[in-house]
Amino acid sequence: MKNLFSIEQLSKNEINEILQIASEYDLNFVSDEFRHKKLVLAFFETSTRTKLSFEIAAKNLGVQVIDFMPELSSIQKGESLVETLRTLEAMGVDVAVVRHREEGTAKMLSTQLDMSILNAGDGVNQHPSQALLDALTLKEVFGELEDFKITICGDILHSRVARSNIELLSKFNVDVSLCAPKELLDNNFSSLNYHDNIDIAVQESDVVMCLRIQKERMEQMEVPNTSEYFEKYGFKKKHFEMNKDILLMHPGPVNYGVDIENGLQNHDRCLINSQVKNGVLTRMAILKKILNYIGK
Amino acid sequence: MKNLFSIEQLSKNEINEILQIASEYDLNFVSDEFRHKKLVLAFFETSTRTKLSFEIAAKNLGVQVIDFMPELSSIQKGESLVETLRTLEAMGVDVAVVRHREEGTAKMLSTQLDMSILNAGDGVNQHPSQALLDALTLKEVFGELEDFKITICGDILHSRVARSNIELLSKFNVDVSLCAPKELLDNNFSSLNYHDNIDIAVQESDVVMCLRIQKERMEQMEVPNTSEYFEKYGFKKKHFEMNKDILLMHPGPVNYGVDIENGLQNHDRCLINSQVKNGVLTRMAILKKILNYIGK
Amino acid sequence: MKNLFSIEQLSKNEINEILQIASEYDLNFVSDEFRHKKLVLAFFETSTRTKLSFEIAAKNLGVQVIDFMPELSSIQKGESLVETLRTLEAMGVDVAVVRHREEGTAKMLSTQLDMSILNAGDGVNQHPSQALLDALTLKEVFGELEDFKITICGDILHSRVARSNIELLSKFNVDVSLCAPKELLDNNFSSLNYHDNIDIAVQESDVVMCLRIQKERMEQMEVPNTSEYFEKYGFKKKHFEMNKDILLMHPGPVNYGVDIENGLQNHDRCLINSQVKNGVLTRMAILKKILNYIGK
Repeated sequence: MKNLFSIEQLSKNEINEILQIASEYDLNFVSDEFRHKKLVLAFFETSTRTKLSFEIAAKNLGVQVIDFMPELSSIQKGESLVETLRTLEAMGVDVAVVRHREEGTAKMLSTQLDMSILNAGDGVNQHPSQALLDALTLKEVFGELEDFKITICGDILHSRVARSNIELLSKFNVDVSLCAPKELLDNNFSSLNYHDNIDIAVQESDVVMCLRIQKERMEQMEVPNTSEYFEKYGFKKKHFEMNKDILLMHPGPVNYGVDIENGLQNHDRCLINSQVKNGVLTRMAILKKILNYIGK
Repeated sequence: MKNLFSIEQLSKNEINEILQIASEYDLNFVSDEFRHKKLVLAFFETSTRTKLSFEIAAKNLGVQVIDFMPELSSIQKGESLVETLRTLEAMGVDVAVVRHREEGTAKMLSTQLDMSILNAGDGVNQHPSQALLDALTLKEVFGELEDFKITICGDILHSRVARSNIELLSKFNVDVSLCAPKELLDNNFSSLNYHDNIDIAVQESDVVMCLRIQKERMEQMEVPNTSEYFEKYGFKKKHFEMNKDILLMHPGPVNYGVDIENGLQNHDRCLINSQVKNGVLTRMAILKKILNYIGK
Repeated sequence: MKNLFSIEQLSKNEINEILQIASEYDLNFVSDEFRHKKLVLAFFETSTRTKLSFEIAAKNLGVQVIDFMPELSSIQKGESLVETLRTLEAMGVDVAVVRHREEGTAKMLSTQLDMSILNAGDGVNQHPSQALLDALTLKEVFGELEDFKITICGDILHSRVARSNIELLSKFNVDVSLCAPKELLDNNFSSLNYHDNIDIAVQESDVVMCLRIQKERMEQMEVPNTSEYFEKYGFKKKHFEMNKDILLMHPGPVNYGVDIENGLQNHDRCLINSQVKNGVLTRMAILKKILNYIGK
């Protein structure tokens, strides 16, 4: 694997292989294996967790990490992204982890550069490492990616997390439902089950994955404020009672009081911390596969 | 020692142990001992010296350093400090070095997180690593923390450096005096000696430790401008003559021409460079103690 | 060699030695040799390529790199550059790589500090590592720094790159010409050949080195806009036809469509990528010489 743009590009075997490698790592793993390799973090959207997760994953493998901070660089002065990365490539940088508000950025870059490109989120399109870490988290719980029901709840339409997760889980034998205001559904996923509110979703699912809702989106919806949204789609403490096996996921950062009721973050059926931990391990596995490939 | 919030929490034995470990390090020390450990620098107030000092100290011990820059992160978008650090903890980060304008931040964080918390300054409350590095500097000169007189001069009321130093030196047999405009004294220290101006302080002390004065503070005082402040409380070249043994300290950054006369920074009785050097060594010792503890 | 301020300070032997060391490195080189050494990047002008080039070069040698970001530091609050670097020196930092808008900054700093100072650009004065990497690039092509003709084209007057390159190439047996609007020539170089437009320069040279033109400069010139500038001084695709051996250089970042026609960056006679690669190798060589010197 030279690049990672989307879940679509990965076969079930490749996904299983990445999850297997990830499951064999732990957070104390540290190695010099890839100390001659260099990776640049090129995040053109503000990010804490994804960027730090990749940084830690790369450093755990011994990779030299360059933090290219667009806010502080001359890219503001009009140099194009391609030219900037071409320069880094000429300096010996092997991998670029790219987050950009425009869909297709990672793929576009790969056509113009020799370095490996890892998509860490391109607009509302894809966020493949997130779907892989979520799959690892689900596999830890269920043993295999099959025979369980998950509902993805929130702003499906504008969520690269939803898109990547749906694509991944649909490759496996997982029953995926959606729960969202109608205006925030995506026609491409009209074949999936739909739950009108989270109470039903909780009763019909083994896992509910809530998404972050942007306040700006609500203004265009029938549920025009956060309290109405929370009432209908927010995961609340009572849901852990309503279904005694229900598991809660969220890609973060959580809008507590909107996406999820405050105080649930440490519930033993809240998997958010596992997702974060698995984020590092999964990104280590992804990088391992890419670095092994380009090492040839 | 899991956390370091304040001088108050440390026994004399613990202080002596930290100073002993620090005195055995030097600036060329470098090790891989803690390469599997991760530390985040979480500075919510602008800082150069303290942040860099911790960064260098950690790297000297082989610790992986994550620079979490609040200016550039999504914490601006409303994610809470606790949630952000919980995420880092889930990624395997072992220690957070925190500077924050609110008193008690470090202690509050420790009640909600498993990671070690190191207070690098919380409002006007505490700055324990500064007091420890000052103690190391004084011990280098006097052999022991006893039988000498020190005057702390400047804005005592708003200074976490003063507070931590007074607490530390009061545990030992050191004679501590204060010299400050009356409005900038702290009632909690009313049992200490008081010198009305720096000329007297210099004559009555072995060491004068000047503090940085904020211009905004002067407006509320009887000495309403920098030249009057400098005249009455600034350490001047003549003071090195007035007392041929007097030693000068300052936690930095110095307002030259206000706190201290310009040109004194390289005087052989000015200990500022020793303080900076000892800052790195002391923080190495603090980290060593914390990392050994959590390593169990 | 303790410091590097300018090309002027280097003998032909020293230049040859640096280029020789550089030519023996490659981009995969990685070593722990200097892991006890510390270097600070102190860039007071926005920069991507030079700063990252030094960062990668230093890390390849195992040097601990401190990124002192003035934008985010308390130097904004009035602490002087000298005091800040003195503090870093006291923390054990061995080398400062400094870029500053004022001419002579690097040299001034060296008179007040013990640490090594490496000039990464001081106003319109000098950029010695750029001239050395350009020399390495030319030596790779021509075998020796002699018996070829180069034209430097663009804003000579305000270019530290031009200044350092002219000084270096003039020490060797290289025929240097200039091509620029008359207002952007420098009287100090009036003994050099002059070409009135780039068509002639291309026909009379083996290499054309274009420089970045600042739009603000054009307003003071007879060629008051980018299209006229490009017409007369921009390197165009046709020039590769006009002289079948002509080589193109540019220190970057390129203003495509102004300095150089868009689309030429990957032409096999465009040396820009070689310059970038050689930037890392040359800076590794410079650092090696400095670190060996101060290691004594």
